Amino acid sequence: MPTRAPSTAAPTPVRDPSGAPAADTWTLSSRTVHLNHGSFGAVPTVVSEYQSALVAEMNSIPGDWFTALPGRVGAARAHIAAFLGAPTEATALVPNASAGVSVVLNALDLPAGAEILLTDHAYGAVHMAAERAARRVGGRVRVAPVELDAAADDATRAVVDAIDDRTALVIVDQITSATARLLPVGAIAIECRRRGVPVLVDAAHAPGMLARPLEDNAADYWVGNLHKWGCAPRGTAALVASERVADGLHPLIDSWGAPDPYPVRFDTQGTIDLSSYLAAPRSLDLIEELFGWDAARRYMGDLADYAEDVIAGAIESLTGERATVDVGMPVPAMRLLALPAGLATTPAGAHELRDRVAALGFQTAMTSWRGTGYLRLSAHVYNVAAEYDRFAQVAVPHIVALARET
Amino acid sequence: MPTRAPSTAAPTPVRDPSGAPAADTWTLSSRTVHLNHGSFGAVPTVVSEYQSALVAEMNSIPGDWFTALPGRVGAARAHIAAFLGAPTEATALVPNASAGVSVVLNALDLPAGAEILLTDHAYGAVHMAAERAARRVGGRVRVAPVELDAAADDATRAVVDAIDDRTALVIVDQITSATARLLPVGAIAIECRRRGVPVLVDAAHAPGMLARPLEDNAADYWVGNLHKWGCAPRGTAALVASERVADGLHPLIDSWGAPDPYPVRFDTQGTIDLSSYLAAPRSLDLIEELFGWDAARRYMGDLADYAEDVIAGAIESLTGERATVDVGMPVPAMRLLALPAGLATTPAGAHELRDRVAALGFQTAMTSWRGTGYLRLSAHVYNVAAEYDRFAQVAVPHIVALARET
Repeated sequence: MPTRAPSTAAPTPVRDPSGAPAADTWTLSSRTVHLNHGSFGAVPTVVSEYQSALVAEMNSIPGDWFTALPGRVGAARAHIAAFLGAPTEATALVPNASAGVSVVLNALDLPAGAEILLTDHAYGAVHMAAERAARRVGGRVRVAPVELDAAADDATRAVVDAIDDRTALVIVDQITSATARLLPVGAIAIECRRRGVPVLVDAAHAPGMLARPLEDNAADYWVGNLHKWGCAPRGTAALVASERVADGLHPLIDSWGAPDPYPVRFDTQGTIDLSSYLAAPRSLDLIEELFGWDAARRYMGDLADYAEDVIAGAIESLTGERATVDVGMPVPAMRLLALPAGLATTPAGAHELRDRVAALGFQTAMTSWRGTGYLRLSAHVYNVAAEYDRFAQVAVPHIVALARET
Repeated sequence: MPTRAPSTAAPTPVRDPSGAPAADTWTLSSRTVHLNHGSFGAVPTVVSEYQSALVAEMNSIPGDWFTALPGRVGAARAHIAAFLGAPTEATALVPNASAGVSVVLNALDLPAGAEILLTDHAYGAVHMAAERAARRVGGRVRVAPVELDAAADDATRAVVDAIDDRTALVIVDQITSATARLLPVGAIAIECRRRGVPVLVDAAHAPGMLARPLEDNAADYWVGNLHKWGCAPRGTAALVASERVADGLHPLIDSWGAPDPYPVRFDTQGTIDLSSYLAAPRSLDLIEELFGWDAARRYMGDLADYAEDVIAGAIESLTGERATVDVGMPVPAMRLLALPAGLATTPAGAHELRDRVAALGFQTAMTSWRGTGYLRLSAHVYNVAAEYDRFAQVAVPHIVALARET
């Protein structure tokens, strides 16, 4: 075998209180190996069943359901806020992080020529949303480059030094998508506040992965998905706003909550299926009950270390190129590996590679950043070391062969 | 019994091809009588099961689901557009009619001081949305009163004569919510176009109830719910835009579809559960297969006539007041009856009465318009004459007694 022996020990797989493997809590297909929790999450079976029961209740007496719905959404919101460590009165529910960004961009009264400052790690859809908002006032998006391996101070400086008189908003990721690293959002927000510039933290990946995602929050706007690492039904996300700006925020759908204050007005969205919001607390509670969030996070981190080691070893032994990457501020449950040279040099190329690897039986995230292709590995509690071993043995040789064809 | 004998014959109940009563197609609770289809719709059991199967597919291999999703949404959109008689390339999917209104209001580049013109039949949430949009530019909403019994010409004149230089948008209901009547949206839109004022038609109740809801459409914006009379899973609605304005419309959630043209960019909304969009065509097809839409609509109209007759008779025999109402342009499947004097004189009072009547075992819509309370009756294919008989016998005496207490 060309793969080198991993130097990191495989963590002991997580079991539920009955002794069953953690994966039994989910109903993920056995036709493929699930190494991409980060993109779309995964919903525990009993939570999906609970959501189905809610839908059945809605279908049984729709009028009763919709009369009671805003109160039930409010209760779910309080539960989710407590999980995040956010004040309930600062927390609104939105469908996903992109929706939270749209809510914020809709609320801004941008002056003519305004600029929105992003880093070059920003999520592509958020970048496009910011461009559209800036374009409406004859402004533009400006990109502050942050080196992949930048430590906290360098990353903070890279963002803050790019602020100028026209900067009307800074958008910065708490955990970046393409590069799977932390950015020092607390320090950045403090510096921006000092300069009078509001900050929107795109914390899509933070809830569930970070123990206290809002610990050092100093931003006016923060938005995080519950359906990723929190395993809530899609799409459930929380928008946390400072008192200074909350009054200006309105839900995506203008509905009967209009006279209510923030965040209560977000609890009413007309006739839509909000069962995902009501079921989200069940996912948060279930992980705690079955595995304990702290233990789950430790396992996810240990398994991600193992995954990085075994798959980097497989790539390096076949290519002679370094696959491990210094991301400056690594995250607990995702790892970034450099793909063999020539692969996924563009986002389209990354998608094509992802589809090819999916055909081999592996769900992965392939990303492209500054012209280099990366494999972004995820590790959740249902994953086990053997899955990454299999990827190293089966998928890596294929990927290396593809690189040689390019 | 104080009720007078109905002069309208009860229509023969609808059966599916197997001979089963139409109600067997739904899983509505038997704990209450469902006389309020109009507010929230009702989802056929097999469609709800189909949606659950879609959710299970999403949960099985999330990555494959979301990769294929925009294409599947596009196919559902084409199916829905064909049902409505709209060009697919003019039709975008949105969660509900209010969402469509928000999309339009977000897109308008209102000049300072702009006015949005509504009628006094407009849906309350839409009125509030328009107020917020106008307020942002220092403008306001102006209300054109339309008499309850106004015929088409008078209604058209009432709206068009209220247009002035500051009118930036006219919003008019195809089927009004509180008053359950048609408005002549075709004629109004033609007159507004002549004056250079765009029109948004709130057609929340039109799809499924009207055979050709877009037959005489001349409006720039039209939005209708599929989850009401079309029985699609909540929330599924269609926004139909003219070529003139479509380029300016963007989905509620800024996502990866941003570079795509209208309406394709609406097919991508990030990670949310769009199974309702994919299941909606099943509802539209099922009604056709089991009952035939034209036959279903005839039955709904005949049953609504019967319902109006028997319940008005019950009210009138107890109060001596006239309960039937001339709504000028009646709709096929809803009827408006005046409640006994003193009831539901405000929207809050109407909600309270609805809740009291719900406690008696009847789901109804109670509305309040110009200080008068109304009972809005709905008739869908699963309803039968005996349900309205029971309402007349059980609920009406209670309601009349409540009126005497006020």
